[in-house]
Amino acid sequence: MREVRVFAPATVANVAVGFDILGFAINRPGDEIVARLNPAFSGVRITAITGTGDKVLPLDTEKNTAGVSAQRLLHHLGQPETGVELEIHKKMPFGSGLGSSAASAAGAAVAVNELLGAPLTREALLYFTVLGEEVADGSFHADNVAPCLVGGITLIRSNDSLDVHHLPVPNGLHVAVVHPEIEILTRDARAVLSDQVPLSVAIRQTGSLASFITALYTNDISLLGRSLHDHMIEPQRKQLITGFDDVKAAALQRGALGCSISGAGPSIFALCDSGYLAQAVGQGMQAAFQQHGVESQLYVSPINQRGVEILSVTD
Amino acid sequence: MREVRVFAPATVANVAVGFDILGFAINRPGDEIVARLNPAFSGVRITAITGTGDKVLPLDTEKNTAGVSAQRLLHHLGQPETGVELEIHKKMPFGSGLGSSAASAAGAAVAVNELLGAPLTREALLYFTVLGEEVADGSFHADNVAPCLVGGITLIRSNDSLDVHHLPVPNGLHVAVVHPEIEILTRDARAVLSDQVPLSVAIRQTGSLASFITALYTNDISLLGRSLHDHMIEPQRKQLITGFDDVKAAALQRGALGCSISGAGPSIFALCDSGYLAQAVGQGMQAAFQQHGVESQLYVSPINQRGVEILSVTD
Repeated sequence: MREVRVFAPATVANVAVGFDILGFAINRPGDEIVARLNPAFSGVRITAITGTGDKVLPLDTEKNTAGVSAQRLLHHLGQPETGVELEIHKKMPFGSGLGSSAASAAGAAVAVNELLGAPLTREALLYFTVLGEEVADGSFHADNVAPCLVGGITLIRSNDSLDVHHLPVPNGLHVAVVHPEIEILTRDARAVLSDQVPLSVAIRQTGSLASFITALYTNDISLLGRSLHDHMIEPQRKQLITGFDDVKAAALQRGALGCSISGAGPSIFALCDSGYLAQAVGQGMQAAFQQHGVESQLYVSPINQRGVEILSVTD
Repeated sequence: MREVRVFAPATVANVAVGFDILGFAINRPGDEIVARLNPAFSGVRITAITGTGDKVLPLDTEKNTAGVSAQRLLHHLGQPETGVELEIHKKMPFGSGLGSSAASAAGAAVAVNELLGAPLTREALLYFTVLGEEVADGSFHADNVAPCLVGGITLIRSNDSLDVHHLPVPNGLHVAVVHPEIEILTRDARAVLSDQVPLSVAIRQTGSLASFITALYTNDISLLGRSLHDHMIEPQRKQLITGFDDVKAAALQRGALGCSISGAGPSIFALCDSGYLAQAVGQGMQAAFQQHGVESQLYVSPINQRGVEILSVTD
């Protein structure tokens, strides 16, 4: 039967200056999702989940981000009776702040869309992907799924209306992402955040954000570096990440443009103006974690401009 | 003796989405400043202030925004002994939210610089202009003086470091500015502001800001309109402006892209995609004010791209 295999990349959300509104995709790690037509049943069934280590993801379609994303898409396309098998091959850590649930949701939507002859554009798949992501954390937000689907750096003006925009990527921009073996529950990452922001902090944060966007459009790497400061969220969340200050200091000392928490953490990203530098910066960050007795994985990547990739289609 | 006459334009700060960090200049109204060499004394003397109506501005150089701006510049240039007469011809309302004190400060700096053979660039004059502006309201901020000096739409990443950036202006963009005959004291405009912002409001505001900057760079008028929402400051300050909701509704109903408070108010600006529309929008706003028994002045203008203009130099 017809089968589609896709790769859905990890993503870095928030990006220091854009809490809940900015995200970008990286080349590796990511998930592989396989969608296969199966006339023996109707609707979406998850037939395999691999790579979860000692953790468990739900096989129940309605509780799984990939399942919900695929199921809602089938309904929208008027094909709820079509039988689709989904295999989810996790090839990235989850609960890591790297958009694992978003990758599964986006990969499933693209795979099922392709399985049915690609009736929808990537942009049109966003809504179903966000519905899938919502199952994982209970909130309707596109800051991971949007860059995962379409690649690049994306801005979400409004999650309510999914008003999403593609931002330009400065030449040479690379990222070092370090995932420490620390567990942060999303609910803890939210719980440490005050529901109020001092006005003076909001003003500094908006100045950083506006100049970050300006730097992207003007390819101004120096301004990008001056802009990459999270005055609002990082000071509250960094306490959850052992060694954060030292890891960040190591990144900046080696020449990173900026360094902050990826998504809700514990992964930490550092933007750099070349791949060579990102490699050196990442190794410095790992060494700093090690000083605190924390093992980590390093991923070095340019900004991924492709989003979900179709690896194979077999009829 | 050598004399320089300049025109310094009014400015709209905050611009709905960039409290304390965004501003733009308009063509009219503005101040005229005359600087004249006078070897009979040393330092800056203010010899005339006109156009203040029933209000009074200080003639004491050290208490006057134009005086301080000019004096600090003379000192920086190593010419504290040079005698300079300053005339300040106010041709705009003050306490109006249109950057009146900034116009005087910027006009004085440009006039004195030109008087001395223009040793400094416009950008280099910014610091002295901000020092002048500081006399008027006690805070060091460039959101009015920067656009007044250099024109256009300016972004201030950081007031501390005066990291200022010129933003592109979409084709056809015009503004209607309506100044109602209401008085708001700057201290009242500050006093109504909470020193805390709900996190959910800060997130919406940053989404609006980032997409506003994106709209400027991509010349996307539709996105500009969707972005022009002040979730943070306008809801708190609008109570100080009689009829605000009706004036804003009138602007939007006639097709304005967005409408909000200029600076600390009471002036209200509306951005429009043509000069014709801005005229109609402005008249609608005035009519709405009149329904509340409030008289007003209307200024319609493209974004002023020149900043302070040198009107004449005579030796």
